[in-house]
Amino acid sequence: MRLRVDLLPHGGYPDVVLVVDVLRATTTAVAYLERGAEGLLLTRTPDVALALRPEGDEGRSLVLGGERGGLPIPGFDFGNSPVEAAAQNFTGKTVVMNTTNGTDAAHTAAQTGKHVLLASLTNAHAAARRARSLATEEIAIVCAGTDAHVGLEDVYAAGVLAEYLLALGEFSIDDGARIALTIRRNAGNPIEALSSSAHGERLGGLGLGEDVRYAAQVSTSTLVPVLAAEADAPEGTLKFVAG
Amino acid sequence: MRLRVDLLPHGGYPDVVLVVDVLRATTTAVAYLERGAEGLLLTRTPDVALALRPEGDEGRSLVLGGERGGLPIPGFDFGNSPVEAAAQNFTGKTVVMNTTNGTDAAHTAAQTGKHVLLASLTNAHAAARRARSLATEEIAIVCAGTDAHVGLEDVYAAGVLAEYLLALGEFSIDDGARIALTIRRNAGNPIEALSSSAHGERLGGLGLGEDVRYAAQVSTSTLVPVLAAEADAPEGTLKFVAG
Repeated sequence: MRLRVDLLPHGGYPDVVLVVDVLRATTTAVAYLERGAEGLLLTRTPDVALALRPEGDEGRSLVLGGERGGLPIPGFDFGNSPVEAAAQNFTGKTVVMNTTNGTDAAHTAAQTGKHVLLASLTNAHAAARRARSLATEEIAIVCAGTDAHVGLEDVYAAGVLAEYLLALGEFSIDDGARIALTIRRNAGNPIEALSSSAHGERLGGLGLGEDVRYAAQVSTSTLVPVLAAEADAPEGTLKFVAG
Repeated sequence: MRLRVDLLPHGGYPDVVLVVDVLRATTTAVAYLERGAEGLLLTRTPDVALALRPEGDEGRSLVLGGERGGLPIPGFDFGNSPVEAAAQNFTGKTVVMNTTNGTDAAHTAAQTGKHVLLASLTNAHAAARRARSLATEEIAIVCAGTDAHVGLEDVYAAGVLAEYLLALGEFSIDDGARIALTIRRNAGNPIEALSSSAHGERLGGLGLGEDVRYAAQVSTSTLVPVLAAEADAPEGTLKFVAG
């Protein structure tokens, strides 16, 4: 079995893909499903998200969450905050998500991956176990990064996932996995690593330090968002459900 | 002053760029110039390299060096081996180089960079000092990687360069630099890091382990290949001279 860590999305994934965008898309995705959402629709653009809301949807069966540059998108109901998500009840609702990097990474993964899962630090152990049980040839951990630059927080989380996976079985590992493991073992504890990342610093500057602390919790959830059969999802979206 | 490490070529470099392809293009480039070559012409494709050789160039004022998949290119005079280069005398010759990743990275750097230098472990200290003396706003260390995947050997070398730079002055650093510094400090000595990289292992398997050991020497040369004024170079090539 191969274990591969792409420090930025690359494509060409043949088997299981774990998409990682710790600050904050995949952390928030886990929180939405933890709080009862029936599913998540990840769109490539904010416009696709806005177009999904039916006219006069007073019951708000669809809620929109997302960000650009860390800030909420006009017309959306929620930002991309796991703290905000964890304080709400989404029972019976579907959350449409669009974020700067995480949703793109998920779309890249879905082009070829047989099984696409969303992973964060908060669900790291469960995500690693699920990936191991599904994989037949390769597990690829894909770091979303920030605007095509490698993000320390995602590489750190990839190292945490890789450590769990190596404890579950034998893998041949690539240079990306070697780098992620070295970062995980030498970049401090999760809150230190996430806070010192450029993205963590920016969120702190925007008054969103609580989200960074939330995202630094390790394996507090057993919920793994799993890409559902495509037939189920509107065009241009990926539907994830609790797995 | 900003210090930025791109674990893969990204583009958009405003100031000084250090291009790193330790196994083996930038290491070999230093060796060619050490052994007397007047200049290096880096081409984007092997065909551009072959077309540069004049008909009936018996004196061989132009020699061709390069590789694909680690092996010499048909019609070329040399592979991409620093050991081979270091054993020859290139006085009075210009070397046309084309390699799988390093020459592409140099072309990406040259699109916007004001000063483009080639760096390896062998010239790391000299390259860092030269970069520092030229820079006015940013030094970008650009890892060539291998076929769009991050290479441990390049990230390690970027960390060595970053350490030298941090000893030369104050920098604000990005996540790529943080990652490279952590790898440099925790991935063993140079020969361990290069040998354990996927690319190092492949070269070893091709019988090119001597090249890996050569490339793992740190700061044995004070020669820094510097991109020369473009007017001097044939179309589609970049000309580097000893700086």
